Amino acid sequence: MIQTITSRDNSLIKHAKKLMNSPRYRREQRQFVVEGMRLCLDAVASQVTIQSLFYTEQAEKRYQSAVEQIGLIAAKRVKVSPSVMTYLTDTQTPQGVFCVCIALDKNECVYKMDNNPRRILALEDIQDPSNLGTILRTAEAMGIGGVLMSRGCCDIYSPKVLRGSMGAVFRIPFTITEDLPSSLDEMKKMGYWVYGAVPSRQAEPVTGMRFPERSAVVVGNEGNGLTDTCINACGGLVTIPMPGRAESLNAATAAGILLWEMVREDHTQRSGADGNE
Amino acid sequence: MIQTITSRDNSLIKHAKKLMNSPRYRREQRQFVVEGMRLCLDAVASQVTIQSLFYTEQAEKRYQSAVEQIGLIAAKRVKVSPSVMTYLTDTQTPQGVFCVCIALDKNECVYKMDNNPRRILALEDIQDPSNLGTILRTAEAMGIGGVLMSRGCCDIYSPKVLRGSMGAVFRIPFTITEDLPSSLDEMKKMGYWVYGAVPSRQAEPVTGMRFPERSAVVVGNEGNGLTDTCINACGGLVTIPMPGRAESLNAATAAGILLWEMVREDHTQRSGADGNE
Repeated sequence: MIQTITSRDNSLIKHAKKLMNSPRYRREQRQFVVEGMRLCLDAVASQVTIQSLFYTEQAEKRYQSAVEQIGLIAAKRVKVSPSVMTYLTDTQTPQGVFCVCIALDKNECVYKMDNNPRRILALEDIQDPSNLGTILRTAEAMGIGGVLMSRGCCDIYSPKVLRGSMGAVFRIPFTITEDLPSSLDEMKKMGYWVYGAVPSRQAEPVTGMRFPERSAVVVGNEGNGLTDTCINACGGLVTIPMPGRAESLNAATAAGILLWEMVREDHTQRSGADGNE
Repeated sequence: MIQTITSRDNSLIKHAKKLMNSPRYRREQRQFVVEGMRLCLDAVASQVTIQSLFYTEQAEKRYQSAVEQIGLIAAKRVKVSPSVMTYLTDTQTPQGVFCVCIALDKNECVYKMDNNPRRILALEDIQDPSNLGTILRTAEAMGIGGVLMSRGCCDIYSPKVLRGSMGAVFRIPFTITEDLPSSLDEMKKMGYWVYGAVPSRQAEPVTGMRFPERSAVVVGNEGNGLTDTCINACGGLVTIPMPGRAESLNAATAAGILLWEMVREDHTQRSGADGNE
């Protein structure tokens, strides 16, 4: 019979708690935590390596087959008391299930992948985990080939990013680069058209352009936009023309509209419809 | 000289705290709280009626002219100690300034306004304050004429909505309706084309349609989408075609893309560019 852990001082519990709270510890350990039934099943389906499954007795009863399914794959099963579960979880109404997973080892750089992705999204220093999660979810929905992130972006394994992405983190190819401008330079040399997104009338309105076969859009930090170094590394600048008075859009909304514009043409061609007929 | 309030038990402090935390109290009192220098100045610029200005001595020194400016308009000035300020504020790094404001009395219904708005966004039961804030910010940026919200949407005066909207709450016309389907019916009778947003291949792809002169898009709840009653009240259904595997977009992203599509044509016409040339 599996023993139930009731103490917060247990080393497994301490480890999990630290993984939840510390991006640095996650990086050192190359592990992260996935919370909630749906995300855990998403991780399983995406063949994420599950180190250990933590669950309460209540959750085991309620989600019996799912807990079984995850338990079969997890290297370790850990039953915890409800109070330890509440202590550990980030959500207000924990479902009583989470997994410690091994970080996704994506050795291949997104713009060098064999499948030669047509479209790349690059992000510079996106700080808000909800924004990053939303952006990854949108990128997946739009069928973007991969996401390139500066090291200054918030941690992709933070619980909020995982939740906001609806599991897209597990599925979409991504690369974290230490030097985004150099990576953009390299992309250009490889034949990508790299467009920096800026809220400026001097940039090319996205409505007037056609994204080339292989192209990338670069979206900057929420408060400061793209750095000058990054802007200089872009081959062109693109903007979303706005009639209203708000000086700019939320970063996730701007990314959403730009990604949509990247793939929009595919749809108008496929359906034969013409927005300007 | 103005006395500094140092006690949390002071009635003004209790009132402000309750306004911050309770949507119900805000509704009863017809008041709300605006936090931080930028938002407070936004409120002043938008001619929001300011009942009282709360500030710390530090803030008074740091933002002297701004505090003066708001103080001239506020019916009351209240100096508080740093600890009372920390107790009161919702943000992690309070700037030491907030205002109690009178709820915006928008008697006129957005779709009956004299200026006859061309484009309306309707929202059914949007629950997440960050989503609602982002959506309002986008609606303003896109020059949408007004926002119609079901009573089931989260409170527009919640601190998170105000922050996320970047002050758009103060500026964009909005109406909260007790019966969204009836309001949509009324809009149709007034000549609006009302499109419900659904993630379904049966709906008309947004890429193939042209929004008529007076039209509205209706976006539903994050988890459940639009209710059947609401769908039935719509004159048509619209969808964002998605090549990727995510079953749907975040509500704020979906709203962003749909609002963008509503105004997109204006830009392609104005610039003479044609995305399908």
